[in-house]
Amino acid sequence: MMLEFTAQQIAEWTKGTIEGDQNVTVSKLAKIEEAEADALAFLANKKYESYLYKTNAGIVLVSKDLNIKATVNSTIIRVDDPYRSFTLLLQEVEKWMRPQARKGVHPTAIIDDSVEIPETAYVGPYVIIEQNAKIGDHVQLLGHNYIGENAKIGKNTKLYAQVTVYDACEIGNNCIIHSGTVIGSDGFGFAPNKDGSFIKVPQIGNVQIGDHVEIGANTSIDRATMGATKIGNHTKLDNLIQIAHNVEVGESTVIAAQTGVSGSTKIGKYCMIGGQVGIVGHINVANGTKINAQSGVSKSVKKENTALNGTPADDYRATLKSQVLFRRLPELLERIESLEKKKE
Amino acid sequence: MMLEFTAQQIAEWTKGTIEGDQNVTVSKLAKIEEAEADALAFLANKKYESYLYKTNAGIVLVSKDLNIKATVNSTIIRVDDPYRSFTLLLQEVEKWMRPQARKGVHPTAIIDDSVEIPETAYVGPYVIIEQNAKIGDHVQLLGHNYIGENAKIGKNTKLYAQVTVYDACEIGNNCIIHSGTVIGSDGFGFAPNKDGSFIKVPQIGNVQIGDHVEIGANTSIDRATMGATKIGNHTKLDNLIQIAHNVEVGESTVIAAQTGVSGSTKIGKYCMIGGQVGIVGHINVANGTKINAQSGVSKSVKKENTALNGTPADDYRATLKSQVLFRRLPELLERIESLEKKKE
Amino acid sequence: MMLEFTAQQIAEWTKGTIEGDQNVTVSKLAKIEEAEADALAFLANKKYESYLYKTNAGIVLVSKDLNIKATVNSTIIRVDDPYRSFTLLLQEVEKWMRPQARKGVHPTAIIDDSVEIPETAYVGPYVIIEQNAKIGDHVQLLGHNYIGENAKIGKNTKLYAQVTVYDACEIGNNCIIHSGTVIGSDGFGFAPNKDGSFIKVPQIGNVQIGDHVEIGANTSIDRATMGATKIGNHTKLDNLIQIAHNVEVGESTVIAAQTGVSGSTKIGKYCMIGGQVGIVGHINVANGTKINAQSGVSKSVKKENTALNGTPADDYRATLKSQVLFRRLPELLERIESLEKKKE
Repeated sequence: MMLEFTAQQIAEWTKGTIEGDQNVTVSKLAKIEEAEADALAFLANKKYESYLYKTNAGIVLVSKDLNIKATVNSTIIRVDDPYRSFTLLLQEVEKWMRPQARKGVHPTAIIDDSVEIPETAYVGPYVIIEQNAKIGDHVQLLGHNYIGENAKIGKNTKLYAQVTVYDACEIGNNCIIHSGTVIGSDGFGFAPNKDGSFIKVPQIGNVQIGDHVEIGANTSIDRATMGATKIGNHTKLDNLIQIAHNVEVGESTVIAAQTGVSGSTKIGKYCMIGGQVGIVGHINVANGTKINAQSGVSKSVKKENTALNGTPADDYRATLKSQVLFRRLPELLERIESLEKKKE
Repeated sequence: MMLEFTAQQIAEWTKGTIEGDQNVTVSKLAKIEEAEADALAFLANKKYESYLYKTNAGIVLVSKDLNIKATVNSTIIRVDDPYRSFTLLLQEVEKWMRPQARKGVHPTAIIDDSVEIPETAYVGPYVIIEQNAKIGDHVQLLGHNYIGENAKIGKNTKLYAQVTVYDACEIGNNCIIHSGTVIGSDGFGFAPNKDGSFIKVPQIGNVQIGDHVEIGANTSIDRATMGATKIGNHTKLDNLIQIAHNVEVGESTVIAAQTGVSGSTKIGKYCMIGGQVGIVGHINVANGTKINAQSGVSKSVKKENTALNGTPADDYRATLKSQVLFRRLPELLERIESLEKKKE
Repeated sequence: MMLEFTAQQIAEWTKGTIEGDQNVTVSKLAKIEEAEADALAFLANKKYESYLYKTNAGIVLVSKDLNIKATVNSTIIRVDDPYRSFTLLLQEVEKWMRPQARKGVHPTAIIDDSVEIPETAYVGPYVIIEQNAKIGDHVQLLGHNYIGENAKIGKNTKLYAQVTVYDACEIGNNCIIHSGTVIGSDGFGFAPNKDGSFIKVPQIGNVQIGDHVEIGANTSIDRATMGATKIGNHTKLDNLIQIAHNVEVGESTVIAAQTGVSGSTKIGKYCMIGGQVGIVGHINVANGTKINAQSGVSKSVKKENTALNGTPADDYRATLKSQVLFRRLPELLERIESLEKKKE
């Protein structure tokens, strides 16, 4: 299926103004540095302005107030926020490119008699839904999902194939969870016996995930010992993340891949946490904290909007200075030795 | 379902002695800092004693010999070990809160004719069990499990949904394995050819997991090239852990989430390994070793009960000192510069 | 099933020459340090030569030109490349030890009418194959696999149980993918709104995996925003790896477990990347780069065949020196203090 749009159609759709040939047509979206004549691209960051004068793109979305300094071969459409307009165009294209929402219950789905499936929901092949689970309107379960007893999947939420939700765990509305992710496995709690064996500390709490949350592939979120492990509204978790029991992550926080948060730690709102970060248990991380990739956070972050780096994590700028001097340690040693010699 | 117990009933059950109103009733368990009047809490660590004088808990379990220094509003029950008593109470509550063991074979399970399923076992929907696999008494396979040829699942062992066990791998008795975990994938072995391609080194060994082992979600344990990758009795592995081929982990060792152990390394008994630790291949880690989170262990640990930290990992206390001085490197440089100036 | 071979049979098969009893028989393969009289072992690395004079192995493969300095109890077979010969023997043994390729479509597989399954392929129980997916000759899908719309699985490729391939993703020929791995989940892209919520940036690209690629268990490879996330021919990825959207990994590169590569980064050919490495987004890593385990690579690597270590990653040897001095920081401080005192 080939869709073509003229510059004029796109200008109308984005409420933009055209400079250049308004009859140019494009049939796909591309990055400005890779775009050919049949593609629409965008320029959001002035750092990449030089691409504008080299690109083969048929159409480029640029900012209303961009000051163009050289010849541009593409048709230009000026908009308020080129990245936003491009993202909205991507959403339109996605409807044609990616599989769309389905309806109905596949005959191979095994659903306990106590469970009601709304007419607007899709329950795909080989899905298992246990006793008293609640499934919201427009829910999409793509296949091989396991939904435990008393679990709750909010409306418009989509679970890709092979997502597991343990008993009593609750997922909000408008969430997306990718394949291989496990919600509600037991927290890691064991009380040592004197003979070296352990008693398992039962994990009778659950996981509560807010609305508009997206969770990547192969992430694990453990249920609470008592109470709930919580993920706030609008929060986004990447792939292969570990969220331990009784952790609470606030609203609109973004956590990159392979990061781990240990038990009972509370992370605030609007935080941005890089990949492979480790955060110890039983601490508080203030709202707006930014943590650089691979950092190890070993104590509470009390001041909001702090930027952290390193293991143990410390002030971002100070750590960068120390990292530079770390590389110069052999030189520092030589300078100390030279001072010592002069001394003698 | 609402269960209520009086202080007297709990005192009998925990073999404790009551101080205060013995007719107080509770219907749930909670942390001392969060407990309301309808909840039972415990105080195990004197660090948190101040909570005892502030809590709203109906009942608090405390140690036999605790010296109470202020007014307590709750009924007190004195026991030998409050954490242990509380854990045992949690186990009782768990029976009401979490799904219990089932029996029988779901009609959609696909089980090779050569496999015998004991009457006491549960084989859930869409489980696949290949040729000659052995399934013990009271085994629980919750759904979507894949049990390969000649694999062995010991008695009382529970596999949550979507656990995969490759051919010939053996899991002991009384184990728990959480969703998404993979036991017996191929070890990572490739012999380079001169043209830049690789020959795959076949992995013909297996994985042998002892008794009373618990493994979290989305963990991977690779099969041995030859022989076995081994996990000792009573050992506990958290989520998202990587155990490479031919690794051996001793008994009663605890490993936190996202840690990786490289090929052929042997880890002793009673070790405690933090999260996101990396351990290189072909080394030995002595019994009782404690490794701090995010450490990188690059050589054998010969002395038992060593505490390690950092990358490359070193003595715990020494590393902490160096980490403090790392942050002071800009100051050290200034002091060297000032000495040099005076010199001139 | 017990297979026995004489030294003479093995010598013929490996084109080697025998020293010692040519009628000795072996029935298994083992490591030289663990081999008993019924086993064949090999010696490839002279570092381990001492084992040759102690081993109980029935037969040992050694290098053509090895200079034997003491009595050896085993029958010796001299070959050009003992490790290669042993690997080829392992491949023969594997045919008897591990499950072999099957054919046919299990009646429980749910395959869209638009999909053609070659007669030589195996589609196991509870596999789901969506619309217009392409399945090559001799493909093996072991069970519980999900193959999305328009996805493509090349010939001779094997997917172990519970591998998920999202819509439009393409896997080449002769690949092996282990359980729990997810190919084509959405890249992690969100554009912030002013109210703290996010717009999801649609991920309309795909994943393209070359030929002869092996991918371990529970690894995640995200689809591109636009274009493709690419894994080159002969590249090998271990378990629990994160490959973000629009990453490109070149040919014959090897990446160990739990490493993460951030969005849009391009990694060259013939690289060797250790475990738990983190690589930031939007950089280039030159061909032949070697990166030590747990390193954090924060800028492009321009020179080919560079060896890197540490966070932020730097020249391998320089970093080792700084790491040694890091441990000596308390001593350096003392020396500075002592110089300062003499000064006064």
